[in-house]
Formats: sequence, structure tokens, C-alpha cells
Amino acid sequence: MEIKIGMAKTAKYANEYCGDTCDLAERPHGGISAIIADGQGNGLAAHHTSSWVVTKATQLIGDGARDGAVARAVHDYLYAMKDRKVSCTLTVISADLESETVVISRNSNCPTIVVTPEYESVYDDEVAPIGVHRHMKPRMYEVPFTPGMLVVSYTDGIAHAGRKHTGHDADFEKIMEIIRKDTAEDVDYIARSIMEYALFLDKEKASDDMTVVVLGITEDSPGAKIEELKAVYPF
Amino acid sequence: MEIKIGMAKTAKYANEYCGDTCDLAERPHGGISAIIADGQGNGLAAHHTSSWVVTKATQLIGDGARDGAVARAVHDYLYAMKDRKVSCTLTVISADLESETVVISRNSNCPTIVVTPEYESVYDDEVAPIGVHRHMKPRMYEVPFTPGMLVVSYTDGIAHAGRKHTGHDADFEKIMEIIRKDTAEDVDYIARSIMEYALFLDKEKASDDMTVVVLGITEDSPGAKIEELKAVYPF
Repeated sequence: MEIKIGMAKTAKYANEYCGDTCDLAERPHGGISAIIADGQGNGLAAHHTSSWVVTKATQLIGDGARDGAVARAVHDYLYAMKDRKVSCTLTVISADLESETVVISRNSNCPTIVVTPEYESVYDDEVAPIGVHRHMKPRMYEVPFTPGMLVVSYTDGIAHAGRKHTGHDADFEKIMEIIRKDTAEDVDYIARSIMEYALFLDKEKASDDMTVVVLGITEDSPGAKIEELKAVYPF
Repeated sequence: MEIKIGMAKTAKYANEYCGDTCDLAERPHGGISAIIADGQGNGLAAHHTSSWVVTKATQLIGDGARDGAVARAVHDYLYAMKDRKVSCTLTVISADLESETVVISRNSNCPTIVVTPEYESVYDDEVAPIGVHRHMKPRMYEVPFTPGMLVVSYTDGIAHAGRKHTGHDADFEKIMEIIRKDTAEDVDYIARSIMEYALFLDKEKASDDMTVVVLGITEDSPGAKIEELKAVYPF
């Protein structure tokens, strides 16, 4: 089978720095993790916060730490370094080959959505961001690999898109429709489509930093097993 | 402008573990680095070696260390941890927004190629891999950003493809042709094409682990500045 990950990120309109950070980390026992974080506020300070959080998370994942420990350690780090004054959301979506499951660790005000050919789940239990509360635990979920599975999450720039113009949030059902009508082959297209929907609601001027992550599990591609990475980084 | 990176990697035929590792790291002062490493031997031991090397490099880059220091520190780490007994190649290609240059750090037996609309350079000076010699320095090169620029490197599974069947290495001129006939927009296509050429020479059964990295500098895309990441991870 194949794990496919697509991510898209954009900064609040007219801001040089994006307060969201996203990254990937290869897991030493096999598999890959996608990490997204939204630092408190926006601009350079938020950029540094979310960068630190994601860099620390990728370092721990690369060293083999389990996801629950990663979220706790990154929280403790931010809590100590910023003297409990700065919050940050953190969502880690891991396709773990040892357990053959997708492990989701959420400290975010945005949902994580799982869509497979058999079922749909929306994980949106209330949970605090990291960095500000003494006692912090991530919300953890685990779902077995299924071909055709899609796991989607995003930051609140997506969830609240359009609020400035219409007074209400982005239509969650519309986001679900975008996910449902595509396949796990098209993770990058789905990420891009959700972002384009949010930008459309914000009249092409993002009201906040926006990040989308889409992870898919697909059947094998024919031919040699080729791992691929692609990045586009505008400046 | 935009930085685009495409990477492709495959394991030696019938090997479960790939001894090459590749990864990306966002630079805290802006820009992005691509890292490739080829661990001594192949299979699980080589996989662990190159994973450690790349994980350590991405950690240091994420913490803001300059590339020359990264190569030295990663060498010292491998030299200490493996008691100077295990070698690994390391190539770091960084598009650095602070200096607006591409910085290349090579400890590899394979060349790094720069092709722009104005000139072509092949950096293939002799340099030792990391991990085994007390005094190690990376070969460093720095070239200013130019729209249309392509920077390409690979591991020796590509350079030596076909040797098993024909007794001689892959045709370097053929690799240059693949690079020349495409544009910096198509980094992933170029990476994939070079790998497919090498697999063709090896009769679709890779004689060694193979990795290709292609970095391109392009003009702006229209619309919002959207950063994108995509990964395909077969298992």
C-alpha cells in the first residue's frame, strides 16, 4: 500500500510571516507523520512559536518517540520556554507501519476528519492548545489502515474563513463534500481544494493563517516502490 | 519567486529497507533545505545510519545552524557514535532566503549539478564521506538565485546504474540531457525521470539504493502564496 500526504499553507493576507507551520517526519520504525501547528497571534512571533513546536515534534518523532509522549514533551517545552504565556495548537497525524494504524494526536480547536469507503468520523472533542495549562493531555485517536482512507485536518484560518464578510464560519458540510468527492490518490488536490474554498470565502485575502493536511492510504502503485517528496515554497 | 524541490528514492531490488534517506527542513530565517544521505552498505544497518545522519542534519538546520556547521557536527556525531567505523555520504542543498543563494554542502562521491539559463556547473571535486576520518570538511559551494535555476544531485545507485549488466556506469551526458530539456517548474518530473532512466539501466531491478534530489528556483505563481508539501510513501 502507499501512504500519501498533501499539505497546503498560506499566510494571512499582506503578512510576510505565517503563524502556522506544517512539516513531515519519517518514523524510524516505518511510516510517516504530518504535523501542523498554529501559534498564538500572527506574524513573526506566531511564526517562531509554531516553528519551534513543529521542529521539536519532528525531532522527537525522528528519534522514535511515541506520539502521546511527543505532544506532552512539546507542551512541556513550550510551557517552560515561554513561561506558560504562549499557546499553540498541535495536531499530529501519523501513519504508523508497526501498528498499521493512523494515530491522531489533537491539541486543536479544529476537527480531524476520517473518511473511508465504510465510515466517516469527525473527531472534534474539546481539548486545550499546548503551552498554557499545567496539566495538558492530547486527545488521541487510532484507526486501522484501510485502502481508500482519508484523514484531514486544518487550522482555524480554514474553519473561520468567511467570518469577516458573512459573520459565520466556513460551511463544514462543504468541506466534507470536497473530501468525499475525491479519492485517497488525490491528497494534494484535496488540500488545495479546501484551501481554495476558504480563500474564496475570504474573497482571496486570507483573514488568518491557513493550513490544511490530508493523509491518504491507497493500494500499491504498479512498478518499483518509489518514495517521493515534493515541496513548493513561495517567497 | 518560488523554491521547488522534488525527491525520489527507491531501495535496492528485493530489499525491504533502503540505505538512503532523504528529507526536507525549513530554515528558521527563511528558505528550505534538501538533505540526502547514503549509509555504508545496504539493508537495515545502512538505513539506520543514513536516517540518523539526516535526522541530525534536519534538527540542526531547524535550530538555525549554518550548513557548514551542520555537516561538521553530523560528521562528529557519526564518528563518535559508530567509533569511526561507519561511513555515510551527506549532501545538503539549501535555498537560503537570507543570502538569496543556493548553498551546497557535499560529502559525497556523486556530483551536484547546477543548470541555469546562463551557465552549467558540475561540482564533483573529490571529498570523503562523513564518519570515518578525524579531519573532515564538507565541500561548500554557493550560487546566487536565478529564475530557471536547477540544482540536481543523487546517490551512487543512480551514478552506477547499469554497471552490473554493461560493466560501465550510467551515462552522465544522458542525465544532463534530462535536466536540460525540462524547466525548474518540473522538479518532481525531473527527479522521477532520472530515477526511471537508472531503473531502466538496471533492468527495473535496482542494483543499489537510489535517491535523486532536484531543487528549482522559479518565477512567482499567480494568486495567493501557497506553500505546498507532498509525500508518497510506499510500504
